[in-house]
Amino acid sequence: MNFSVEPIATIHALRQHPEDDFWSGEEARIVLADGIPAESLQGLAEFSHVEVLYLFHQVAQAKIVSGARHPRNNPNWPKIGIFAQRGKNRPNRIGSTICRLLRCEERCLIVAELDAIDGTPVLDLKPVMAEFLPRETVRQPQWSHELMRDYWRRRS
Amino acid sequence: MNFSVEPIATIHALRQHPEDDFWSGEEARIVLADGIPAESLQGLAEFSHVEVLYLFHQVAQAKIVSGARHPRNNPNWPKIGIFAQRGKNRPNRIGSTICRLLRCEERCLIVAELDAIDGTPVLDLKPVMAEFLPRETVRQPQWSHELMRDYWRRRS
Repeated sequence: MNFSVEPIATIHALRQHPEDDFWSGEEARIVLADGIPAESLQGLAEFSHVEVLYLFHQVAQAKIVSGARHPRNNPNWPKIGIFAQRGKNRPNRIGSTICRLLRCEERCLIVAELDAIDGTPVLDLKPVMAEFLPRETVRQPQWSHELMRDYWRRRS
Repeated sequence: MNFSVEPIATIHALRQHPEDDFWSGEEARIVLADGIPAESLQGLAEFSHVEVLYLFHQVAQAKIVSGARHPRNNPNWPKIGIFAQRGKNRPNRIGSTICRLLRCEERCLIVAELDAIDGTPVLDLKPVMAEFLPRETVRQPQWSHELMRDYWRRRS
């Protein structure tokens, strides 16, 4: 059974091509699609963070992995199922990032550290509430810390 | 422009109908769809939490709000844009919840506190990495704390 989804906004960003690291310092604009009223953003400015669900629209169907692979194709890390990593070549091609909300304009959000490229279609925006974050200590494997080492660093 | 998405799994849960509160103590099984190999879950058990993206499949098109409304239709709370709340009657009907991963079986995850009803189609599963959680203090309005008061409580 298939479902149809339609972008509610588009991301305007400096990066034109996917890159793995150095997302710190990036600012992006999320501009509402024509059919979506400005009132949909009402009250969002009272939240410090917004969760952005978007589509990795440049990933070709043939690149999608539904089994296991080395994260970033790095053989030093174990072979891991696609649902145990956050890479883009995944079934349904959906990305999810919590980013800092810098300000709201009429039909537009300005956010910091959204790891998506220019032209990315947005499927949903949700306010971040502390109650929906993990309520217990987060445990994760060592390879995932290594993978994230330079992710939020500033390019030097 | 429309995109097509296809469930990668289905949620098996006790609750048959949407309810607002008292999700503590709920356990659910997430069972992979036929076309998805078991290897897609490999390594996920090393993470304590999993982010589940799912579809509010019972929400009728006519119920979807794309502007502003009172959360839970409660007039005591301000009128808020649909993208400043997490309710289900939203464009694209996508839900996103971080839940505790209790254990993995071959083609199945058992999770705690997934706020979705029986039969819900799952669009994606992602491991929770501390690096993708907010890296600054989360700020949110008072109405959202009030709304969440009984959400993770146990029904008495």
